[in-house]
Amino acid sequence: MKQGILAELEPIFYPRGVAVVGASNREGNFGRFFLDGFVQMGFERLYVVHPSEKEVLGINVYPRVKDIPGEVDLAVVVSPVDTVPGIVGECAEKGVKGLVIFTAGFGEKGDEGRKLEREIVDIAHRGHTRIIGPNCQGIYCPASRVTHFTGLSRESGTVAMISHSGSLSAVLPMTAMAQGIRFSKVVSSGNECDLNAVDFLEYFGQDPETKMIIAYLEGVKDGRRFCQLARSISKEKPIIVWKGGSTDRGARAAASHTGALSGSNQVWRALFTQTGIISAQSAEELLDYLQAFYYLPVPEGKRVAIVSGPGGPAVAASDACIEAGLELAELTEHTRRKIAEVIPPVGTSTDNPIDLGMGSGFAPQWYLDSIKALGEDKGVDLLLIIGGSWLPDFGDKVAEAVKGVNKPAAFIGMGLMPIAPAKGMAVYPDGRRAAMALGRLVEHTRYRAGC
Amino acid sequence: MKQGILAELEPIFYPRGVAVVGASNREGNFGRFFLDGFVQMGFERLYVVHPSEKEVLGINVYPRVKDIPGEVDLAVVVSPVDTVPGIVGECAEKGVKGLVIFTAGFGEKGDEGRKLEREIVDIAHRGHTRIIGPNCQGIYCPASRVTHFTGLSRESGTVAMISHSGSLSAVLPMTAMAQGIRFSKVVSSGNECDLNAVDFLEYFGQDPETKMIIAYLEGVKDGRRFCQLARSISKEKPIIVWKGGSTDRGARAAASHTGALSGSNQVWRALFTQTGIISAQSAEELLDYLQAFYYLPVPEGKRVAIVSGPGGPAVAASDACIEAGLELAELTEHTRRKIAEVIPPVGTSTDNPIDLGMGSGFAPQWYLDSIKALGEDKGVDLLLIIGGSWLPDFGDKVAEAVKGVNKPAAFIGMGLMPIAPAKGMAVYPDGRRAAMALGRLVEHTRYRAGC
Repeated sequence: MKQGILAELEPIFYPRGVAVVGASNREGNFGRFFLDGFVQMGFERLYVVHPSEKEVLGINVYPRVKDIPGEVDLAVVVSPVDTVPGIVGECAEKGVKGLVIFTAGFGEKGDEGRKLEREIVDIAHRGHTRIIGPNCQGIYCPASRVTHFTGLSRESGTVAMISHSGSLSAVLPMTAMAQGIRFSKVVSSGNECDLNAVDFLEYFGQDPETKMIIAYLEGVKDGRRFCQLARSISKEKPIIVWKGGSTDRGARAAASHTGALSGSNQVWRALFTQTGIISAQSAEELLDYLQAFYYLPVPEGKRVAIVSGPGGPAVAASDACIEAGLELAELTEHTRRKIAEVIPPVGTSTDNPIDLGMGSGFAPQWYLDSIKALGEDKGVDLLLIIGGSWLPDFGDKVAEAVKGVNKPAAFIGMGLMPIAPAKGMAVYPDGRRAAMALGRLVEHTRYRAGC
Repeated sequence: MKQGILAELEPIFYPRGVAVVGASNREGNFGRFFLDGFVQMGFERLYVVHPSEKEVLGINVYPRVKDIPGEVDLAVVVSPVDTVPGIVGECAEKGVKGLVIFTAGFGEKGDEGRKLEREIVDIAHRGHTRIIGPNCQGIYCPASRVTHFTGLSRESGTVAMISHSGSLSAVLPMTAMAQGIRFSKVVSSGNECDLNAVDFLEYFGQDPETKMIIAYLEGVKDGRRFCQLARSISKEKPIIVWKGGSTDRGARAAASHTGALSGSNQVWRALFTQTGIISAQSAEELLDYLQAFYYLPVPEGKRVAIVSGPGGPAVAASDACIEAGLELAELTEHTRRKIAEVIPPVGTSTDNPIDLGMGSGFAPQWYLDSIKALGEDKGVDLLLIIGGSWLPDFGDKVAEAVKGVNKPAAFIGMGLMPIAPAKGMAVYPDGRRAAMALGRLVEHTRYRAGC
């Protein structure tokens, strides 16, 4: 039998039945929005609780939670704040394992709201019911068809996300999904009156589906436990954190957003260093790093070879690699000769960064042969490939060549062709972003190796 | 009569006739690529020079430059390096005003090549002919139908670009064009054996078509003159510079790319501060800043108001604004009351950042009323609007509301809707990037005001 956090949270993420409390046919009702998500995901044992509706989106409505005939492990509560304590009581009585309380107007509003939070936690714990929220969006788990938004993928993956923002818990996964990345579980934890980010970190650390964890955090409730968990989990599963509320004005905004106490910037920087957490400064950085950790093999060192058609971007990428903590590989004579054999002698360079010259946009073979030569050079740990071409199959060919070389590679498209990330290759619109992502990958690999 | 740099460069950018020397029907010939660009642009007085071809892309071929019957003010030279001195001599004799030498294999290859460069400059100057390049892509000037690439817009605009990279001189404008930005002139100046970036800076400073200047530079030949010109030009026309070769390895790559001497990072930082040049760290930053300077009115101060539906991104954007040197505006009671009148009391905040709550994605009116109220608040200098919606006209409505308020605004779309930049509004995919761009706009405005 499963124990601890796994035993407690699995029934909530894999519920036998779900009730949406407060869903109605009224325009703009958020309960209906949740229901719509569950229906689109294909979740079947779905119930609605509402005092006066008879049917919402074709689903039977029960006046109270206790009237539901089947088992309910998860209830999503969208009803007005004054009805919440009563609903929590009913759920605790019925044996509901977890409540997602979407309703806002609690701790983020001040003392009165914090008191109300303590009250509902007391009520919930009488019946072994745990609370997610209030003021949260709840959970997504494609394997169990549970969702907190519409438009998310039904395909399961290996990334888990913890978010102190409801909107980011949907927008960031959606953006990542467009790059082919798939998620195991997502939780938007809101005010965290009961279950908090640290609990979810522990759960995702143990969850066999989850191989890496990303988070948008505005603060953590139990810093010491967070630290201990993060340090051990990040040895196995990379943790990428974007911390909001790092300035005084940001912290003030965070307090009124989720009631979070942000902690000082310095404390967080120290925490990131000690725990091996990869720190992202923005949504974009978070997604850039995720792409590298999701798609790329583990680098053996920090020596990067740059292969480029355009010369200017290669110069700028050299700068960016150095600034990201990488080294430019010194290529062997053998490698340089191999490359010199296929490219023109003029307007090119076989010194790293390798400049394939202006003709390379029409000559994918120059890229493929260079990638192969660099793959065989033991002094090269990573590849950064810069290219632009009008040839439609150019990107696919480059991705294929990279696959044949077991070294992490970043590709920078010069705006001319669409190219999808592939196993072994991550794709960026800008050299600096690619270099930063490779830099973090190398840094984290060293952390895991204990260097 | 025009004098100085204007008199010298205008005939080159607005040529009566253009010859492409070395264009042939051979697969992958770059002369044909240039010709194709000119044909697409609709340039008419076009000639080809080639020893054996009879016709290329339907254009008459002449065996030598002197055989061309009409006036030629600009010649694009793509023929092999050993033929270049002879061609330069012929052009000087015919009275060609400017040569774009695309051919590589000069100064970037070492001493031998540098000697050859001095030789062709001597030959050219005997006939009052100026050289752009060698190892360059040349010039784009939509008003005169001159181009250096295919796929660029025929519409003229207000942005000029100087580039030490041929590919970036096409890729950056193309990306900016997709955002609606239009260019007056672009030059890729290559090895700069004769005309260099400083000359083009001077020209664009005087060019009435040009209102702002962007540049990718790997180094400048005459630092003192560059400084003096930049300082006076940037009082009238913002100059945004992305400097490549800022690390030792980048500088080494720059030397083999265009033979440039990069100069130390410190020197460049001091130069940027003294001259009011806006410094960009990457292609993406350059384009982000350009969008702000192109689309936004001049800010009166640095106090920003953030209006957001999603709470997390508003917290993170607050941090980003502070880090970018902006201040969060303290809103008047009147403004807060105006906003409180239209948004729900729960799950929202009228403190800056203004949180319109989860329902705002379905309620564009909440945005429009808030933008109006902030427009009337004299304590607000800039707007940062964060939004996501499934409503198709949401973005247009927001853009319209911003237009009614004469304050610079950045819009961050939460990945759900496409939205185009509009006069008064610039669009970014990420809060940090938006904040950085607004920060630079404020900083530069202070520089121009002499603070």
